[in-house]
Amino acid sequence: MATEIERKFIPRTDNWRDGAGGVRYRQGYLSTDSERTVRVRTAGDKAFLTIKGKTVGASRAEYEYAIPRDDADAMLDQLCRRPIIEKVRYKISHGGLIWEVDEFEGENAGLVIAEVELSSEDQAVELPDWAGQEVTGDPRYYNANLISNPYSNWK
Amino acid sequence: MATEIERKFIPRTDNWRDGAGGVRYRQGYLSTDSERTVRVRTAGDKAFLTIKGKTVGASRAEYEYAIPRDDADAMLDQLCRRPIIEKVRYKISHGGLIWEVDEFEGENAGLVIAEVELSSEDQAVELPDWAGQEVTGDPRYYNANLISNPYSNWK
Repeated sequence: MATEIERKFIPRTDNWRDGAGGVRYRQGYLSTDSERTVRVRTAGDKAFLTIKGKTVGASRAEYEYAIPRDDADAMLDQLCRRPIIEKVRYKISHGGLIWEVDEFEGENAGLVIAEVELSSEDQAVELPDWAGQEVTGDPRYYNANLISNPYSNWK
Repeated sequence: MATEIERKFIPRTDNWRDGAGGVRYRQGYLSTDSERTVRVRTAGDKAFLTIKGKTVGASRAEYEYAIPRDDADAMLDQLCRRPIIEKVRYKISHGGLIWEVDEFEGENAGLVIAEVELSSEDQAVELPDWAGQEVTGDPRYYNANLISNPYSNWK
C-alpha cells in the first residue's frame, strides 16, 4: 500500500506545453464510491488496476497492480461506467519535482489539471509560473467525479 | 478474461461433509454493483482481486489477479463494504466434477451453498445425492448480495 499525497492546480497559461511529450491515457471506473474507487487505466501500451481509499487531507491510500492490456481494454469497453475518461498526460520537471499535466478530451474537453505528487503534506513546492488556481481537495476535479459530472456540464 | 459458468444448489443433507477438508475464506467488496462487482478475497494464505461482469444466463465475465496478502488484509479491514463475508470452502469431487461447498459464518451463519463450475451452459451434471434445491441465477445467493441482505435477515 502506498499513500498518495498530491496538490492540484489549474494552469493559467499554456506555457507548460513547451517541449512536453504526451502519453495517451484511457481510464474508466468499476467503482466511483469515494471511499473505495476502482480504476482501470491504459497508459500508452501498459495497463493498471488501481484502488484508492477516501481522501483525508491531501493523502489517500492507494493500491496499484499491473494487468494485461487486453483485460483492461475489454473492461474499459464492456464493464466500466460510462463515459470513459480520455486524456493526454504530459510530464514536466520543475523545481526538482515532476508535474503531471492532464489535458482531457471527450466530455471533459477544455479541462486541464496539473498535479504534483509530494512525500509529505507540508513539503514546500516551488510553483511553476503557469500554475493558477489551486484545486486540491475539490471533489469536482477527482477523475472519478468527471464521469458523473463532466466538465462540459459545469458551464 | 475467463467466462464463469456455474450452477448453485442448497444441500438438503449434511452428507457432503464426509471427508471434506475446508479452507477459510474472507472476502469483501469494493463494488457490489451487479454489472461490475469487485471482490477482495483471502483463501488460506493466498489473496486475489476479482472483477465480474453482469450474469447473463449462467455465464459471467471474470478477471482475477493474485495480489499480496498484506494488501488484501488491509483492504478487507479498511476499504471494503461492511460486513465482510467469512466462510469455509470445502472441495468435493463427484461425477468427474469439483463441487465447492461454502459454509458461511457471521451474519450469514446457517447458509450453505454448493456450486459446480461447468465448461458450457448445457453440460450434463450428475447431481450428488445431497444436492437439494437449485438456486442458480437467484440474486439473493450472490455473495455480493449477502452483504446488503445477509442470510440472518431472510427469516
